[in-house]
Amino acid sequence: MADLDVYKKQKFGQKIGFGQHPALLIIDFQVGFADADVLGGFNMLSAIEQTSKLLKTARSSKVPVAHVRFATEMQGDDIGTFAVKVPSLRKLSPDSKDAQFVESVRPKKGEWVSTKRHGSAFFGTNLASWLNSIGADTLLITGCTTSGCVRASTIDASAYGLRPMVVTDCVGDRAEGPHRANLFDMEQKYADLVTSKQVVAYFKTLKNK
Amino acid sequence: MADLDVYKKQKFGQKIGFGQHPALLIIDFQVGFADADVLGGFNMLSAIEQTSKLLKTARSSKVPVAHVRFATEMQGDDIGTFAVKVPSLRKLSPDSKDAQFVESVRPKKGEWVSTKRHGSAFFGTNLASWLNSIGADTLLITGCTTSGCVRASTIDASAYGLRPMVVTDCVGDRAEGPHRANLFDMEQKYADLVTSKQVVAYFKTLKNK
Amino acid sequence: MADLDVYKKQKFGQKIGFGQHPALLIIDFQVGFADADVLGGFNMLSAIEQTSKLLKTARSSKVPVAHVRFATEMQGDDIGTFAVKVPSLRKLSPDSKDAQFVESVRPKKGEWVSTKRHGSAFFGTNLASWLNSIGADTLLITGCTTSGCVRASTIDASAYGLRPMVVTDCVGDRAEGPHRANLFDMEQKYADLVTSKQVVAYFKTLKNK
Amino acid sequence: MADLDVYKKQKFGQKIGFGQHPALLIIDFQVGFADADVLGGFNMLSAIEQTSKLLKTARSSKVPVAHVRFATEMQGDDIGTFAVKVPSLRKLSPDSKDAQFVESVRPKKGEWVSTKRHGSAFFGTNLASWLNSIGADTLLITGCTTSGCVRASTIDASAYGLRPMVVTDCVGDRAEGPHRANLFDMEQKYADLVTSKQVVAYFKTLKNK
Repeated sequence: MADLDVYKKQKFGQKIGFGQHPALLIIDFQVGFADADVLGGFNMLSAIEQTSKLLKTARSSKVPVAHVRFATEMQGDDIGTFAVKVPSLRKLSPDSKDAQFVESVRPKKGEWVSTKRHGSAFFGTNLASWLNSIGADTLLITGCTTSGCVRASTIDASAYGLRPMVVTDCVGDRAEGPHRANLFDMEQKYADLVTSKQVVAYFKTLKNK
Repeated sequence: MADLDVYKKQKFGQKIGFGQHPALLIIDFQVGFADADVLGGFNMLSAIEQTSKLLKTARSSKVPVAHVRFATEMQGDDIGTFAVKVPSLRKLSPDSKDAQFVESVRPKKGEWVSTKRHGSAFFGTNLASWLNSIGADTLLITGCTTSGCVRASTIDASAYGLRPMVVTDCVGDRAEGPHRANLFDMEQKYADLVTSKQVVAYFKTLKNK
Repeated sequence: MADLDVYKKQKFGQKIGFGQHPALLIIDFQVGFADADVLGGFNMLSAIEQTSKLLKTARSSKVPVAHVRFATEMQGDDIGTFAVKVPSLRKLSPDSKDAQFVESVRPKKGEWVSTKRHGSAFFGTNLASWLNSIGADTLLITGCTTSGCVRASTIDASAYGLRPMVVTDCVGDRAEGPHRANLFDMEQKYADLVTSKQVVAYFKTLKNK
Repeated sequence: MADLDVYKKQKFGQKIGFGQHPALLIIDFQVGFADADVLGGFNMLSAIEQTSKLLKTARSSKVPVAHVRFATEMQGDDIGTFAVKVPSLRKLSPDSKDAQFVESVRPKKGEWVSTKRHGSAFFGTNLASWLNSIGADTLLITGCTTSGCVRASTIDASAYGLRPMVVTDCVGDRAEGPHRANLFDMEQKYADLVTSKQVVAYFKTLKNK
């Protein structure tokens, strides 16, 4: 509460608003992140379910979609100290079961797709280039985890000149505390928080799709 | 507590340990961030004071130092939606009083220095290049804010293959909740948390300086 | 001639065409690059003169302008091996005479401006972010040298998803051979070659300025 | 000759020299680039043969190796205007025959490997991160084409703070003119030119492998 007061006083957290050319980003909804015994937990399954619905609407609204997943080609030796902090990541080789996209949010032909080896969906990928090349100005951010790769991607979405929109019911985390704390940070500094319902309503306003 | 349990079970938060070639990074300790009426608050002044001491030791230990500060050349029109979320940033032109380095942690000749226009000290700067060119493997991270530019820089330090070490008494925030929540996230995923006392002890072990 | 045949056979060098939202980039037209005794030569002065005219038209056409110049803060120790290959760069400190923008192409308030420490105008700057944030899809590339920073920036402009347009009478080099060879490469792989006359005609077709 | 005179007078082209920690990079030696009817020509086959020999020595000398190949996931729609300039690239989907690594220079387990969608081996990959994480200071650059992805990667290798070494008999192009012109540019500005014989002799001097 007191925290929020300081942010308000210093005028953090103003609204950005949707732009004219959205794209949907789905981060790391992989088999291992859907499993509480591997890298999942808390609200992951619900976030995946909501994202699967939003993905369908995005597709029927002809909104471009980007999919990214984490994978290591060298059992962790290609991801630097990330593999030291989080040794479980070493198992996520590209062909491992846990590294596969969850079935309900799988990429379709004609959608942008990439693996990545760090937190941000932008780092070591050409996501920013693709978004720029299609004229996207607004990035609808879904995936997991709120306190990890979603947060990292949101920071970079802001830095790359986009309007980052974190879809609150479509981002998941393994634990509630970090989930909430990161939503707070992202709203104050980098992104608007929106619900998938608001996004669907926004899709209806788009022309020239 | 329950949060921490999930992280433990999934083996997050392992220790990286110091490497052989450290560099010290000081982020955004600028006049406006030292002022609770502008962009400061909570533990900023204490973090600056501790960093100023650590900086002296780094210099006498011949540890390379990097300084970065936020500044906008176009009253915010060159920083994308960051200026929409946080309109106070628009005032930080390179020559404004609030954008200057705090006196006690000012760069000296021979130290790396750059302005930046986004959160991370790496984004839109050549910090990663310089660190690589001098063979640094360990980045001692100080500055502000813990929940903003320190967090963003720590994510990138991990992604660029370094050993990120967040110096807990040398990072400051405007509010305690986000400060603590971000220390938790960074320790679980990207960095070791160390005290300036531990860093000074580490400096003494370095050879061939 | 035989070279061109292979490129034709393999279908290199197709035209991109202008987009709807251009920006003008001016690279490294600095005092030292205008001086044949420092870093200049060949067609530099002519390229500067042509660019100065194009800059005026861009401004009156309300086309956004970006200016970048090379400078080292550490007498070359912050630019890696670039300072070893080209030791003359060490002298270009931010305040040195040779590092200043040439008077006739100086930035005005409201234009994007940055220093850089490497070849590409994109590397270690937030140029891609700014271009994306203003919705630019076409980059009109001028400056020097054709075989150095113009070439490096053109490669990155392509990689960042833009339509790179090298303005042939507005790019300069210290020697004719590399100038011509790099125009060939850029046209075959990354950019259209256009004259400033064509760019001015293109400006007249722009609406909603 | 006159060109070279200007470069000499302005002190371009100084030697960098090998560092202590090399890595070998092999760029785009893919089936389609080995075929003069697709994207190959000139000295490609010879460059592949020489690289295959150097690769064996690198492996037996325990020098880390990085492999990169071009591939598009969206038939060119994910590579921006690169697909407009060079429409032949659209056919290089990850599973296409022409996109596969040439047999004699295929990656082995334990070597860094990535696809890329633009010229530079660094752009949209985590190559710089991996090189930094293993402490590499010297990048031995092989692959194709000299005037395309080799040039782009060499510029970035310099920008990321490495010692770029272009191995002249291990880089190939589809045409001789651009091959020679780009070797000239790279030697003057970013890299040393070395032969594979010199590299093998250098490998023998390395200790603590």
